[in-house]
Amino acid sequence: MDRFYFDWAATAQSDHSIKIDVPFGNPSSLHTEGKTARKALEDARSVCASVLDVPKEELFFTSGGTESNSIILNSLLLRPGNTGLLLSSIEHPSVREQGTILKELGKSVAWVNPDASGHITPENLQKVLDKFPDCRMISIMWVNNETGAVNNIPELAKIIRKRSGAPIHIHCDMVQGLGKIPCGLKTWNIDSAAMSGHKICAKRGTGILYLKQKIRILNIGGGQEQSIRPGTENLEGIMNLSEAMKIYVHSDRVKEHYDAAAKRWERLIESLHQFDRAEIIPASRQKNDASFSPYILQVSFKGIPGEVMTRALDDAGFAVSTGSACSSALKKRPVLDAMGISEQQALEGIRISQGYSTTTEDIEKLVDAVRKILQVL
Amino acid sequence: MDRFYFDWAATAQSDHSIKIDVPFGNPSSLHTEGKTARKALEDARSVCASVLDVPKEELFFTSGGTESNSIILNSLLLRPGNTGLLLSSIEHPSVREQGTILKELGKSVAWVNPDASGHITPENLQKVLDKFPDCRMISIMWVNNETGAVNNIPELAKIIRKRSGAPIHIHCDMVQGLGKIPCGLKTWNIDSAAMSGHKICAKRGTGILYLKQKIRILNIGGGQEQSIRPGTENLEGIMNLSEAMKIYVHSDRVKEHYDAAAKRWERLIESLHQFDRAEIIPASRQKNDASFSPYILQVSFKGIPGEVMTRALDDAGFAVSTGSACSSALKKRPVLDAMGISEQQALEGIRISQGYSTTTEDIEKLVDAVRKILQVL
Repeated sequence: MDRFYFDWAATAQSDHSIKIDVPFGNPSSLHTEGKTARKALEDARSVCASVLDVPKEELFFTSGGTESNSIILNSLLLRPGNTGLLLSSIEHPSVREQGTILKELGKSVAWVNPDASGHITPENLQKVLDKFPDCRMISIMWVNNETGAVNNIPELAKIIRKRSGAPIHIHCDMVQGLGKIPCGLKTWNIDSAAMSGHKICAKRGTGILYLKQKIRILNIGGGQEQSIRPGTENLEGIMNLSEAMKIYVHSDRVKEHYDAAAKRWERLIESLHQFDRAEIIPASRQKNDASFSPYILQVSFKGIPGEVMTRALDDAGFAVSTGSACSSALKKRPVLDAMGISEQQALEGIRISQGYSTTTEDIEKLVDAVRKILQVL
Repeated sequence: MDRFYFDWAATAQSDHSIKIDVPFGNPSSLHTEGKTARKALEDARSVCASVLDVPKEELFFTSGGTESNSIILNSLLLRPGNTGLLLSSIEHPSVREQGTILKELGKSVAWVNPDASGHITPENLQKVLDKFPDCRMISIMWVNNETGAVNNIPELAKIIRKRSGAPIHIHCDMVQGLGKIPCGLKTWNIDSAAMSGHKICAKRGTGILYLKQKIRILNIGGGQEQSIRPGTENLEGIMNLSEAMKIYVHSDRVKEHYDAAAKRWERLIESLHQFDRAEIIPASRQKNDASFSPYILQVSFKGIPGEVMTRALDDAGFAVSTGSACSSALKKRPVLDAMGISEQQALEGIRISQGYSTTTEDIEKLVDAVRKILQVL
């Protein structure tokens, strides 16, 4: 049976056309093999810096988005005094759960809710910020992994920067936006950002932490990556990632892919509207809505639990998901809860996510499959 | 110019003969692609469990030895009360530096020194333990990465288990012993152990945490690896690692490699003794001494700083190192300090480390190169 992959937000297929010749030395070694490896590592960093249009000194290689997030959040533990943390309540589990842990460890943690469309608004942020004088770090994701809601990070950063008093570290989980949405990171005026390799067709186990000013972090280890991320550098993964960055995060390519994805998504949303039982989440999302990523769609089908729909589609050859893969075992939908979606509808939600190689024909086949399922379920 | 690699303790060359077919799904996804990936992940875990002769439920995949160590050490932060940490003062930076950080965060941290030969003795351990009633975790490495000293972990564990009162978590950094020294992990009676993939010819960015009883850890994230190590699993790395485990950590193979390595090391030590200026560190190390790894040798050359010798050997085609690659930028030798080696000699020390493909001829060529260097320096 043909398979159709609509779970790109969970992971993309590695780009096997990327071939690299990896030197085997340890980049921290001082001999010839080490120096050759070091040069390859720094060349890869330069490539990523050039693609992102930021200085290479502000990029650190990690094992993935989750680690990039936790490096920043855990750094709060080393900051003395009442260093409060403000998180959006639609964050990825790697941020949300870490917030819960930091709270347990004595940090003040506050949450800012999204509006009904799933976006963090300047108004909501301002309100929480006004009541949180101890706030020293804020983490708000760029593109939500369940609804595709695109937060206006530079606008939110402006609100934060306006506050007088002690500086606030602004962190952004960019994982679902990188290579998908045109971006001007260097103009955002944020302090750090997390990126993942495997969402942009690079190998798993690779990620980037953008960090404007070095801070003390919890794990030092052998001092690799300027004491920001310890452990022998995964050079093969890093070189592969830098090639994927060149291919998929280059601004022209992002724009081209975005436009094509938006057209396909418009068609998908239009087609789903023909089904009475289908409800786009949030209901306010338009078929061509720039405040949502055209790579992610959350939709519920009245009377059909998301798990059942997921399984039915899987049986028909289509891979979609319920929540994020990262919390598929937990059976909770905290992001949809925070938006005010009823528990009933939240549990009926499925996430459809597309990627660079998805075709219009794939979309049509998916809609046909949904139609058939709705006839019997 | 031919190159001779004598820095296997820093990193081994990946085994490029390992070819695997990696399913691309996210193992946490519930659809067919996810399930296929999940099966491959669990099969890889079973292979590792079988090689190590421990239950597969006790193995968790990480990004490497450093992360495996920090997961355990940082778990102390979630344990209430006076949960003291006892570390050997010859630990790898990923343990040693983390101990310093945990101390800064309010944990009691004590250190046990090695004897003059670089080993942690039951007597020294007992003494420190007696003065440390709050001790709840102990981390002692198996094979030291600078001297090759092999600690008798089961014997040390016995001392620890004998103490009455609150249980003590025993952690062991096995990185330099895995695949090198015959081992019976399951008989050691320890709680956790760290292993690294790239030291046994697997890809970088992979490691294993052995953990007998699940504990709460600092980073939960998406709950992967049973909430022990968050982040999308690096399936390609994990499958590659499990193949490398089959090849290099299988007990017959370890023994065979060990015997061959010991013969070559005997020859190296004998040959170095002919040079008046060469001093094996520690001086008590015999040419065929089972209390040291036959893969690692620390030696100093009177009047020649280690860095100079390293560079001279590099120019002659031989890659050796001074301290661990992980702290090559730091220019400190805390392990040798702890053994009571003078600062002068410590700074003259170099580490020679061999691997599976090192030959007797390589050793002879290395000795010739040292001879020529000693004639001019």
